[in-house]
Amino acid sequence: MTEFDDEIALAAAEGVAGTAYEGRLGEGWLVGPAVNGGILMALGVHGSGLAMAAAGGAPETIAFSAVFPSAAAPGPLRVETEVLRVGRRISTGQVRVLQPDGDGLVERIRMMTTHAHLDDHSEPLHRQSPVPDMPPPQECIRATREAGNFAGPIAILDRLDLRLDPATAGFGLGAPSGVGELRGWLRLADGREPDVALLPFVLDAFPPVTFDLGAYAWAPTLEFSGHLRARPAPGWLRVRTTTTNVAGGLFEEDCVVWDSTGRVVAQSRQLAGVRMPDGSETS
Amino acid sequence: MTEFDDEIALAAAEGVAGTAYEGRLGEGWLVGPAVNGGILMALGVHGSGLAMAAAGGAPETIAFSAVFPSAAAPGPLRVETEVLRVGRRISTGQVRVLQPDGDGLVERIRMMTTHAHLDDHSEPLHRQSPVPDMPPPQECIRATREAGNFAGPIAILDRLDLRLDPATAGFGLGAPSGVGELRGWLRLADGREPDVALLPFVLDAFPPVTFDLGAYAWAPTLEFSGHLRARPAPGWLRVRTTTTNVAGGLFEEDCVVWDSTGRVVAQSRQLAGVRMPDGSETS
Repeated sequence: MTEFDDEIALAAAEGVAGTAYEGRLGEGWLVGPAVNGGILMALGVHGSGLAMAAAGGAPETIAFSAVFPSAAAPGPLRVETEVLRVGRRISTGQVRVLQPDGDGLVERIRMMTTHAHLDDHSEPLHRQSPVPDMPPPQECIRATREAGNFAGPIAILDRLDLRLDPATAGFGLGAPSGVGELRGWLRLADGREPDVALLPFVLDAFPPVTFDLGAYAWAPTLEFSGHLRARPAPGWLRVRTTTTNVAGGLFEEDCVVWDSTGRVVAQSRQLAGVRMPDGSETS
Repeated sequence: MTEFDDEIALAAAEGVAGTAYEGRLGEGWLVGPAVNGGILMALGVHGSGLAMAAAGGAPETIAFSAVFPSAAAPGPLRVETEVLRVGRRISTGQVRVLQPDGDGLVERIRMMTTHAHLDDHSEPLHRQSPVPDMPPPQECIRATREAGNFAGPIAILDRLDLRLDPATAGFGLGAPSGVGELRGWLRLADGREPDVALLPFVLDAFPPVTFDLGAYAWAPTLEFSGHLRARPAPGWLRVRTTTTNVAGGLFEEDCVVWDSTGRVVAQSRQLAGVRMPDGSETS
């Protein structure tokens, strides 16, 4: 069992065949006091796939969207699912991850998921986002908790081997490019190879792209939407995040992930909050 | 009452204060036999805003995602809402539009919605997608039902004044550019000015961008995600749709909408199915 697979492990809940599952969030995937949102998305996709398989639909998720009603903490969790439609090729579901809090269960994430057999929908490849040009991993800059005060509480950095293209890593020295783009390489620190289950996590694993605009603050996700387009080959993933529309304390972050063969395997867009250096903010 | 406002009108349902609403879909907004998905999204955003206001949250939607479990038809509808979180600035909800079918209510669309006071989150403007260069509306090509066999069943074209940049309108003559981009102007035929309520519809009002790749077929939306970023000024809207990743019978369509002042007011991404000229398809 790898660190990641252990974190998203689920067991069927008693008495509700195929629709509810139980698991536990550990201490290893925290960003400050909260469990990383990408872990919650990977958990939701895992649970939704189990429920869809139990209902006779294709288990793999090809698209998902997520909102985060409250922050998740280490401890037990429950996954509750709903199948909206089982189709010949495309099925649709909903999944919620909840945790005990006070007298009841409190919702941490709600997702809508679209399911299919991914291999039926990854070929033929007609066109895709070009692979970004960047130096090889050994010439990139590894993001570690030792990098500075801001990185210290980001426990998930210990789980990752995340290497930023030096051209987009200026923020670490207080010299952001101002372009609104981060590029780099990503793999898990324990050597677990990428697969479809990992992709929802990868799409939200990079630092906020607004670091490259000089906004050195946490960027809470308001809404997240991702597409999983192909099964990743083993090896390093290439990741690029960009932002184009920044206004009123909100920005969109687009992420594209390529596998080691250069194939686009996933992409996402999120709307998130940012406190820009001029003081505009959301919360 | 304009045609659009009549189509998305809702009245509180009896006995469920603030959480359920009733309305009716007309014959005017059909694409073939089904009611246009953008109308369903506008209806959902309308209902979710009513429910959020009743719960004490900010009514305006700044982000939404949608799935479409079944096709909607003209006739009565019911909107059922759920408030997930009411925050000081940001609130979160869910909304479903259902129609009577056989013995029960069948779900047509399910959305998750993120709410805020839009004016608090549209300024200051730090950066945005540049306004696309295109000829003025009078030099663009109006899309009408008379244009050809394919357009005949698209009743919503009668509700719209949709004018395509000639540079991206080659598909109408069997000469798509192959770039994967459509650009043009949009307003409602009856003169209703754009507002926030109209934007979810506008984001899905253009022909499928895959027409520009020579794929002349209906492109069913699997998942749709939109951001509403600013209140549109009166006048023409500029719309650009693009696709970059096309594989295995699936493509993403990105849409950006600018108002008459050149401000980005909305953007979206959807994953949709396409039958490419080589025969690959989804369904």
